[in-house]
This record gives sequence, structure tokens and C-alpha cells, in this order.
Amino acid sequence: MGVTAPQGFRAAGVSAGLKSSGAADVAVVVNDGPSDAAAAVFTGNRVQAAPVRWTRQVLGAPSGRLLAVLLNSGAANACTGPEGYADTVASAERLAADLGCAPQQVAVCSTGLIGERLPMDKLLPGIDSAAAALAAGAAAGRQAAAAIMTTDTRAKTVVVQADGFVVGGMAKGAGMLAPGLATMLVVLTTDAVAEPSELDTALRAATAVTFDRLDSDGAMSTNDTVLLLASGASGTRPAPAVLAAALRRACADLAAQLLADAEGATKEIAIEVIGAADENDATQVGRAVARNNLVKTAFFGEDPNWGRILAAVGTTDAAFGPDLLDVAINGVWVCRGGQAAADRAGVDLTGRQVHVVIDLHAGVDTVTIHTNDLSHAYVHENSAYST
Amino acid sequence: MGVTAPQGFRAAGVSAGLKSSGAADVAVVVNDGPSDAAAAVFTGNRVQAAPVRWTRQVLGAPSGRLLAVLLNSGAANACTGPEGYADTVASAERLAADLGCAPQQVAVCSTGLIGERLPMDKLLPGIDSAAAALAAGAAAGRQAAAAIMTTDTRAKTVVVQADGFVVGGMAKGAGMLAPGLATMLVVLTTDAVAEPSELDTALRAATAVTFDRLDSDGAMSTNDTVLLLASGASGTRPAPAVLAAALRRACADLAAQLLADAEGATKEIAIEVIGAADENDATQVGRAVARNNLVKTAFFGEDPNWGRILAAVGTTDAAFGPDLLDVAINGVWVCRGGQAAADRAGVDLTGRQVHVVIDLHAGVDTVTIHTNDLSHAYVHENSAYST
Repeated sequence: MGVTAPQGFRAAGVSAGLKSSGAADVAVVVNDGPSDAAAAVFTGNRVQAAPVRWTRQVLGAPSGRLLAVLLNSGAANACTGPEGYADTVASAERLAADLGCAPQQVAVCSTGLIGERLPMDKLLPGIDSAAAALAAGAAAGRQAAAAIMTTDTRAKTVVVQADGFVVGGMAKGAGMLAPGLATMLVVLTTDAVAEPSELDTALRAATAVTFDRLDSDGAMSTNDTVLLLASGASGTRPAPAVLAAALRRACADLAAQLLADAEGATKEIAIEVIGAADENDATQVGRAVARNNLVKTAFFGEDPNWGRILAAVGTTDAAFGPDLLDVAINGVWVCRGGQAAADRAGVDLTGRQVHVVIDLHAGVDTVTIHTNDLSHAYVHENSAYST
Repeated sequence: MGVTAPQGFRAAGVSAGLKSSGAADVAVVVNDGPSDAAAAVFTGNRVQAAPVRWTRQVLGAPSGRLLAVLLNSGAANACTGPEGYADTVASAERLAADLGCAPQQVAVCSTGLIGERLPMDKLLPGIDSAAAALAAGAAAGRQAAAAIMTTDTRAKTVVVQADGFVVGGMAKGAGMLAPGLATMLVVLTTDAVAEPSELDTALRAATAVTFDRLDSDGAMSTNDTVLLLASGASGTRPAPAVLAAALRRACADLAAQLLADAEGATKEIAIEVIGAADENDATQVGRAVARNNLVKTAFFGEDPNWGRILAAVGTTDAAFGPDLLDVAINGVWVCRGGQAAADRAGVDLTGRQVHVVIDLHAGVDTVTIHTNDLSHAYVHENSAYST
């Protein structure tokens, strides 16, 4: 399952002792070809972890060629200076030696606490163990997905069966999701035949409408990375639109898993902005509402507080008239024309799914942003657990 | 005390029954002159409550002339449509009739739940009672300040004794503080002699460096208003800089009281950005850190998590080099050159005051933004109490 579902991929997940719990913490994914085409999307944060800088460099352009990905949980290797960068290089070199390839063919991803050095005495032997454990098949894919978990409560994998090729994937992330893919690691694999530039186009199109529209707590991490590796082992060269559609399905599925596992959330909130003058306005309004702590706490309290939603919309510079705004919560139009409409007592917020529709009456564009509520458990997890 | 401290002002605070608790909920401040010069600063939210639109209109320009201010707690009269606006007009007309002036000389401020009509059957008699109770002296000023409280745990007043004149003031606000003065009502009074345009200049200068630098939860209200009324009763015409300094002192004092009373906060956090290329960069960085829920929960957990601070700085487009960032928390430089420096165990976060210094090493400008932590009590108050 996951990254090993397409032909031409092996994976492993082992425990190197980076996590005090003894849980698996080192994963490796290897592309056995015949192609080694790859593409990536990285965090928009200007403070970037050493593994992000390394992978960006070895990939050269947004797309390029990669033979393997090394991932570790337990330490982010961010804000660790030149020494931290050297640690990333040393770990790529170690896996390259194990695999008999060049270090520049190895991408590196790390996740965990910022500002602490990697325990290299544990990580390097762990890389050797993972390389020795590499295997094809469902079990190996599941082990790799488990080894990249941090506060995740479950491993996240996906398989999309397309016409003549397969897309597989795994993801790590729980909370801290924000535009720019915050604290999220994703490895996607496919046995389709595609050039690096084609992968790049398809990957960007897919992430723009999936991961980029998650906004769990407005934060953005130093380590976010989405990698796509194509082995070409199926022999199928899909049309660009077919490849893009399969990738979008895989990303949408993983994004939904990430949101469902957000730290301390009791609600999954879809904020659908309709009637926007353009996509940018719709996105801006959706994010402003998604990030508003008063809106998020209201939903935690199961209070259909459309006034807070209007106040959040009012902080944007999107095109709209305050006296034209309509808001529906779970199907009930509680606000019409900027004032109270249907009785808010008719809104059922007892379930986990919340659907907000905001009609700006300024055009025809629409965007849906996904977020969570702000709960006691969110405060607990993020005040008691260092990340 | 408060608004009645300068010569030429009367005030009152009475219960009209808008609050189910029976606490005082209608306040009036009257300027007995000889001057009626006034100035105001309003919310930047594009969804503006009826009283904000009314007061903006009667004032004409940002500054103008006002004889009285009518304030109510218990309902915000925001998102209430044309009927809500008519309610505001009717309430101004009622006070004007009681005082024997024109409705256009009466500013109106409301605070409370958005989206519900004012109970005019209670408010109008309450206005009559307040007008009848108008008095000079300290007790009247305190009663007015108490009548504008919502989730405030204490009334907020200030008196600044300047050279030949006095500035007084009262404020309402607890949480929801953000740029643009969110859910905050402030009435400042002075017996200085000053033209409306002079008041406007001094008021804007004062709010820009005080209320505008509070950022408690990133939300922004539909009702925020800061009013300044000058009676000229002292006969003193201060130099512009002297008036501005006195107003700044009054605003800084009230701003500190607002922050200290923020809903559910256990920490008062000052984020001092130094070494910025310009004031705009410094403000942007300070706000990004102040609004970051991961930073705010870390401080609630008394965790000196400088990594989250760097990640927040990295979301801005301010001028800085990631490898040059220094961060001190309560005097300990836990991060130097973008990586760990002094032992974080040396940071004492047990007290209520937290002082963060972020050195961007990009220039000489500096700005301090004030915020609070994100606590269980914040979630409780904002999920259980509708605003």
C-alpha cells in the first residue's frame, strides 16, 4: 500500500532510536526505475530546514531526477546552522553509499522539534538498517508511512488506480496545516512514464487545489515537502490531464486524512466562498474566516455565530458589499443581505462536519478552504508538546 | 475619575435592562464646553455596525464637533440592516431631545452580540434615566466606565495631568483586540483648547503607537471606536506636541489595562522587534509572531519555544536573513544567528510578563507589539459566550 503500490518502488520503515518511545522513525523510499524523474513542492516559509535546502539544491529546478528519499521523524533539523546542514549531507551520503548511487540522487525530509541537532550516532546506523530492510509490497509501504508519524494518530497512505498506471503516496501531518503545506511531509510515487517537467506541472496543479487549501491553524512550517517520483515501470505514458487528475485524487485523499487527524480538532469545517469576483478574493475570504480564532472557538462551542464570520470577512479587501453578504451554516441561511435571516436555532452543529457557505455576490468564482475548530485539546497538545 | 476628570464634562451610567444580569448598560458623556471640538478613530473592518456608520457621518470628517456620546453594552447593533441603523438614529434623537441639542451632535457607540436588534423599549427609557443622572465628579465617571463593560472583569479609566490641562478617559475591551482597535470602545476627554483638526492629528498619532499595537487574538471588530472630546474649559491651549504626548500617555495606559484584562489570558507578551529595515517590517514581524497560535500556546505552556518564533518570522516578507536572526526570551538569548544559543532551560516563564526580543539585523527600526497567550480559558470564554 501507499508508496509501494506502483511498480518499481521499494520502501522501509525502521526504528533508529530518534524517538524516545522506540517507535519507527526512519523511512526510505527507493525508485528502481527504469525512470528516475521527480518533482517537488516546498514550504513557502523563508526559514527553511536543512533537508529542505538540500533537497531543493539536488533537485536543481522544481523538477529533476531522484533515486531515493530518506525521511526521519523525531527531529526537524531546522535552525541548526551549518552543522545541521552538514548532518543532512552526511545522511544523504550514507544512504547513497548503501544504495550505490550519488548523494545528489537522494532527497531528505525531516520532521520534529525545531532547533535541535540530529543524533547522528543513532541516525546513521538507522539508515543502514532501513536500506537493508527495503522491500516491495504493501507491508513495506505501510512501515514507511508509520515511520514518519509525529503527533499523527494514524499512518496516512493512498492508492489511486488509473488507466494503465498507479499513483501511491504517504503523508505525515497533524495540525499546523497552512498554506504552503505546513509541517507536512508527502511522498507520492507513480509508475507512469513522464518527464520531470510534466511531473512538475501536474504536481503543482494538484497541490494548489488540495494541500494549499488546508488551513488548520494558520501556522506554516520550516520543513514542508511534497515529493513525486515516477518510475515509468508501467510503460504507460498518460496524457497530461490524465496524470494531473490521478495526482489530484491522491492529494485530495491525503489532504482529507491530514485534516481529519488535526491536533485536538472536534470539527472539520469546509468554508465554501461563492460569488467571488475572482479566485484570489475567494481564497482570501476563506482563509480569513478559517484563521479567525473567534470563529473557530464558536464552532467548538457548536454556536452558529454568523456575526463572527461577517466580522472576519470584513477584515479582507475582497470585492463585496457588506449589505449583500449571505451566510449558510450546515444548510441554513442564517444571514441574508448582511443581517439575520433564518433562525440560528435551526442549525445542527452536533456532528463533526461543518459546511459554511459565504456568498459575496460579487462574481462567479468559488473556492473551498478546509480548517478545524479551536478546542481545549488543541491548546493542550500545543502547550504541552514541543514542536 | 476618567471622563469627568477634565473640566467641562458630565457623565452617567445606568441600567436599562439590556443586560440580563441587571448591571449598568447605558452610559452618556456630555461636553459642557465652551468648545465642542471632537475627533474619532474607527474600526478598519469593512463590516461596520450601525453606530459606527452614524458617528462617522455626523462627525463629517475624521474630526468635527460633538456635544455628547451615548454608549450601550448588551448589543452591538451590527449586521442589523436598515432597521438597526434606524434604531441608532432614534437613540441619538432621544438623547438629543433630553439634552436640548441636535441629534447630529450625538455620537453613538454599541457593544455586545452581533446580529441582534437593540431592545428599543428598554434602551429609550434608559437614555432618559442616564440624561437625568448626568453629573460632574469622579463617581459619575466611574459609573459611565462600568456601564460599557461586557466580558471586562474591571472598569478601565485614566487621568493624565498635563501642564494646565487634563486628559481623562474610559475604555471597554477584553480580548478580540487587534489592529484597528477591535471590540474596543474608548472615550477620551480633555479640557485643553484645540481645534478639531489638531485633535485629529494628536489622536491618530496616539492610537497608532498604542491601541494599534495590541494584537490579542488577530480578530477585528465591527464596532471599535475611539472618541476624543475637548471642552476647552481649562483655557489652556497646549502646543501640538504637548497635547499629543498627554493623549499618548492616556492611550498607553488604557491599552495596558485592556491587555491585562484580555479574555482568558495568563501571560502578557511584549514582542519587541529590533534591527528592522523600517517600521513596516518591524510591525509585520511583530504581528506575525503575536498572531501565531503555536507561539501563543507555547507561552501558555511556559515553553521558551524559539523555533516556533522563527517559523512565524519566516512567514513574513520583511527584510532579514534566516541565518542572522537572534531571539531573546525574558533576557536569555536562546537563538543567535538562526540557531540555538543559550540554554532554553535558563528562561524563566513562570511570571505573567513575557518579553520577546527579535533582532532582524536588517536596519535600525523597532516596534513592540503586545499580545497574550492562548489558554484553555480563552477557548472556554469564546466557545461558551456569544459575541
